[in-house]
This record gives sequence, C-alpha cells and structure tokens, in this order.
Amino acid sequence: MISWLDVYHVFSATVPLYVAMILGYLSAKHLNIFSLEQCAGINKFVAKFSIPLLSFQVISQNNPFKMSPRLILSDILQKILAFVVLAVVLRFWHPTGGRGGKLGWIITGLSVSVLPNTLILGIPILSAIDGDAAVNILVQIVVLQSLIWYNILLFLFEINAVRKITSSGASIEHRGNDNEEADIEQEPKEEVAIVRTRSPGTGKILLKAWQKLIINPNTYATLFGLVWATLHFRLGWKLPEMIGKSVHMISDGGLGMAMFSLGLFMASQSSIIACGTKMAIITMVLKFVLGPALMVASAFSIRLRSTLFRVTILQAALPQGIVPFVFAKEYNVNPEIASTG
Amino acid sequence: MISWLDVYHVFSATVPLYVAMILGYLSAKHLNIFSLEQCAGINKFVAKFSIPLLSFQVISQNNPFKMSPRLILSDILQKILAFVVLAVVLRFWHPTGGRGGKLGWIITGLSVSVLPNTLILGIPILSAIDGDAAVNILVQIVVLQSLIWYNILLFLFEINAVRKITSSGASIEHRGNDNEEADIEQEPKEEVAIVRTRSPGTGKILLKAWQKLIINPNTYATLFGLVWATLHFRLGWKLPEMIGKSVHMISDGGLGMAMFSLGLFMASQSSIIACGTKMAIITMVLKFVLGPALMVASAFSIRLRSTLFRVTILQAALPQGIVPFVFAKEYNVNPEIASTG
Repeated sequence: MISWLDVYHVFSATVPLYVAMILGYLSAKHLNIFSLEQCAGINKFVAKFSIPLLSFQVISQNNPFKMSPRLILSDILQKILAFVVLAVVLRFWHPTGGRGGKLGWIITGLSVSVLPNTLILGIPILSAIDGDAAVNILVQIVVLQSLIWYNILLFLFEINAVRKITSSGASIEHRGNDNEEADIEQEPKEEVAIVRTRSPGTGKILLKAWQKLIINPNTYATLFGLVWATLHFRLGWKLPEMIGKSVHMISDGGLGMAMFSLGLFMASQSSIIACGTKMAIITMVLKFVLGPALMVASAFSIRLRSTLFRVTILQAALPQGIVPFVFAKEYNVNPEIASTG
Repeated sequence: MISWLDVYHVFSATVPLYVAMILGYLSAKHLNIFSLEQCAGINKFVAKFSIPLLSFQVISQNNPFKMSPRLILSDILQKILAFVVLAVVLRFWHPTGGRGGKLGWIITGLSVSVLPNTLILGIPILSAIDGDAAVNILVQIVVLQSLIWYNILLFLFEINAVRKITSSGASIEHRGNDNEEADIEQEPKEEVAIVRTRSPGTGKILLKAWQKLIINPNTYATLFGLVWATLHFRLGWKLPEMIGKSVHMISDGGLGMAMFSLGLFMASQSSIIACGTKMAIITMVLKFVLGPALMVASAFSIRLRSTLFRVTILQAALPQGIVPFVFAKEYNVNPEIASTG
C-alpha cells in the first residue's frame, strides 16, 4: 500500500525539479534575464558537462556483474518493437512540419515513448512502492539508458545531421552552432554536386556519424564509467577521493541545470504546449500508451516475474526523460515535442 | 600537527574546484565550445541563482543565537581598517587603467584583501588543523560574509554603477547587459544636463543604489536565510523537505559552476595573469600581507584567544573568494584582478 507519507516523499522528490524548471521559465519569459544566446550557453553546458558526468557517476556505481539478463533482454526488446512500430507508422503517415525528416520523427518518437525519466522521477516514486528492490532494478535500467540507448540516440541524431547536410548541399539549416560543422561544409564543391545527383553512400554517412560520436563527451563518459565499474567491482579498485569529488563538483548541479534549461526553452516557445494540441495528444499516446504497452509485451515474452515485472512496467509509464530533450535541443530536432513530454 | 592524511584531505577538497575551473578555461580557450555571450549567460546564472541559494543555505543552517560577539566585532573592525587604509592609499596614488574609478578600486581592494575563500577552501583546510572548533568559527565568518559584507559590496557596486551613469551623461560603458539599465537611461535629457553641471546629490545616488539592491536576489536570499534561521533555532520550525530540496537542486552545483565560470573568464583574457605583473604583485600584497595583518590587529585589539584567534587569522590568509569575483564580472569592475586573486 502507498501511504500518505510515501506520497509526500514522492512529491518532495519531484516538486524541486519542477521548481527549477519554473525558475528557468520565469527568468527567461517574464524577468528577461537571459538572451537566447545565453540560454544556448546554459543548455550547452548541461549537454557537454553536467549530463556526461552524471552518466559517469551512475554507471560507475552500478555492478555490471550483477545485472539481470532478463531485464536487459526485455529492455532491448521494447526498444526494437518501438523502432519497428514507429518505422511502420511513418511509412504510411508523415507528420507535417518538423525539422528532422523521417529519421528525426523516429528519434523523437523513441525519445517520447521508450526513454522515461527513470533516474529522477522513477527512483523516488517506485522506491516508495517497492523499496530497495525497486531501486536496484531502476539503477540497472538507468545504466542501460546511459550506456546503450543515449549513445544510439546520439548516433541517430548524428546520422540525421550528416544526412541533412550532405543532401541539402551543405548550407541551410544545419544543427546548432557547433564549430565542427565547419569542416564538413568546407568539403570540395564537386563532391557536394555528386551528392546531390544521388543519395550519399550509407557507409559514408555512418562513418561521419561515427566520427562525431567519438568526440561526444557522453560517449566517453559512459565508456569510462563502464570500465571503472568493471575495475571497481572485479578488482576492488577505489576511485580516488579527488576524482570522485571533481566529478560531483560539476554533476551535482546537473539535474537542476537540466530542468532550468528545459524551463528556458519552454519560455522561448509561443505557447506552453509548444508543438500544438494535435501533436501533444499524439505525444501523450506515444508516452502513456505505446511505451508501457510495448514494455508489457516485452516483459511478458521474456517472462519477467513479480517485482521485476511490476517495476519495469511502471517505470515505462513515467514522464519523459530530460536527457533526450537536451539532445533534441542541441541537435534542433523537434525539441518542442520533447519539452512537452 | 598536520598529518599527511590531513594534507590529502585538503587537496581532495580543493583540487576538484580547480578541475572545474580548468575545464571552464579549456572549453572556452582551446575547444571553443562557448561564445562570449554564452559565457555571460553561465556567469549570470551563477550570480543570480546558484550563489544566492548557496548563501541562503549556509545562513539558514547557522544558529544566530550562538555566534561569538568578539568574533563579529573583530571581523567588522578588520573591514573598517581595510577601508580606511585603501581610502588613504588611493588619496595619494591612483592606479592607471581600471574601469571603476576610485570607488571601483576600493571595491576591488576590499574584495582581494578581506574577503577570503572561507567556505570552500577554509573549512576543509582549517578543520584538518583544528577540527570541529574551526568549522564552527568558519561558518560564523561565512555567515558574516554573506549577510553583511557581500551586501555592502553589492551596495558599493551599485553606487559605483549609478555614479558612472549619472556623471557620464548616461550612455557610455554602463555595466553588463541588464535591462533595468534602460530605465535610468531614458530619464529626461534636461535632468542629465543638470547632473553634468554639478555632481549628483549623494542622497539620490544612495536611493538609486538602494533601489537596485532590493531587487538583487542575493539580498533576498540572505534576509530569508536569517529570518529562517531565527524561526528554526528559536521556535524549532523545520524547513519543509520540498523547499530544502528545491534550494539544493540549484545550489548544489553552485560552487562548481562558479569555478567553471571563473575558468571561462580567464580564457577570455589575453594572459593568465590578466591584470599585468605589477598589479598582480600589488594584489598578492593586499591578499597575503594587508588582509592577514589587519586581522591580527583587529583580533589582538578585541582580545580573541587561542583557537578563535588562530583560526580567524589563518582564514584571513586564504586565497580570495569566488563570490566577489562573480560580482566584479557582473558589474565589470576590474574582474581581471579579482580573477588573478
């Protein structure tokens, strides 16, 4: 049973996040403290420093030798199912507007439907219901998110960005204000012309996306986190206090900054439901129907039982995670939908 | 005696701060991640959100009924002595350059000489020598800094900003990119012309500075902190978990963000010793000779004894605090000197 005290704990864990978001919203919307460019600076800090270090922290504290294989399998299955469903739907119906093409919509759909806010909302809410057993399961799901899904998401974002540049002749509407972009734009004009006549080779796109991915701080953070967790839990190595504290120094404010940044973004939109009512309803269906339904299907077919079954499905129905929003904003692929979620 | 373990603890507490600073420096200097405007956004976030909430946190946790009157007196005396010394020196010698006039130099001098980094460096270093007794004393000094000295510093910054605008005909070189500035600039032209013929009334300057101060988030944060501490330690009220966590959500990253912002600023300067060698030497003298010497004089005349005497003087010799730097940057009054300190 959930007691009133549990409800209070859940509230006291989630309300501060929304306070940070509302602060961000108010400071940009009504107090005019930050210009658009200054907001971009804060978002960039979150994407390149806070979130990677937060990922490192979570992953490095999880024992990779004690993860549940069934949980991992059902998590992977859910994502594959979601990808297939989204790809099939988009084959027959293409949403109007949007700035990422078909792949952009798949990315947004995946972010909304199968990447819930397990770390921030999930742990306090579900530990109020199932106690430590829930925390153990949720941490594993968070690790899978950081280690596998966020990197795949980033890879898809990069493919999308590279495709857009090569197919549009390398000038209009490329992502954000990244300096690395310049390298790609300065390619010989002839090459671009050949690009234009036929679609660019898949191998080349993958290579470019890979080149981007390996300079992304989140990739390094998750890899180092896994390497460190292995050394720690197998060989008993301990992280020197100095390094641990250095990581905390930046990552501690990560969640608050991410929510603040979300608020800043919402303020820059003309209405709170930034993507329009129709799209908001579709987002809700993806989030609260498709995501949990696919998780039920996966958990059922992999035969998860009792607490593992319940926690896995409940967390799939949590609101959308912050990290995919931060990425969506950084790559400018339908961030208005990610923020509504 | 200081053991090697103590030295290790001191290092492990201070190195992370410098890591955050170096990260900021590298990301702006060599990686070109942030534009100048984006750096300004991050600094503004630190000045308007992180630092005020951090101040609230420290002040609200200190018992105002158990502070040492002698400590308070000697702290106040040191600041008055510093003000007098600086005012006398500046009467006979005016440094070349600088962007704040005589008052600007007094502000910078006070920041460098009598506002050390008690919170971040002081507590770990001195608790390694004197244990909990030191922590108790240092928290009181931090409370005095946040409650009295930072507000007086802000008041001086505001006076300086208002004076500069009224005396220069309200156009050139006003501080930062604050929107409130616009109100002052739009005053009737005639009034400005009268300003120009004789220096503006002191009352008017104080009033304007006061108007600015009461909309400064740090003023509110320190006042609320004191009010809350009184309610808590006298009537036993407890801060609701939700509010406490909301404050932590933003303030937790405050120190790291402030150091990061310092690094960003250093990167924007042409050399690491941003103010030139001569000024750097003067800064060092102010910091490591004048500040501690005045504290010795004050502590001696107020008759502080044993631990209280030792801790008070040792903390006066710590490197300069971060908050005055953040303010100096926000008001653009010799930030290059504050950062070198």
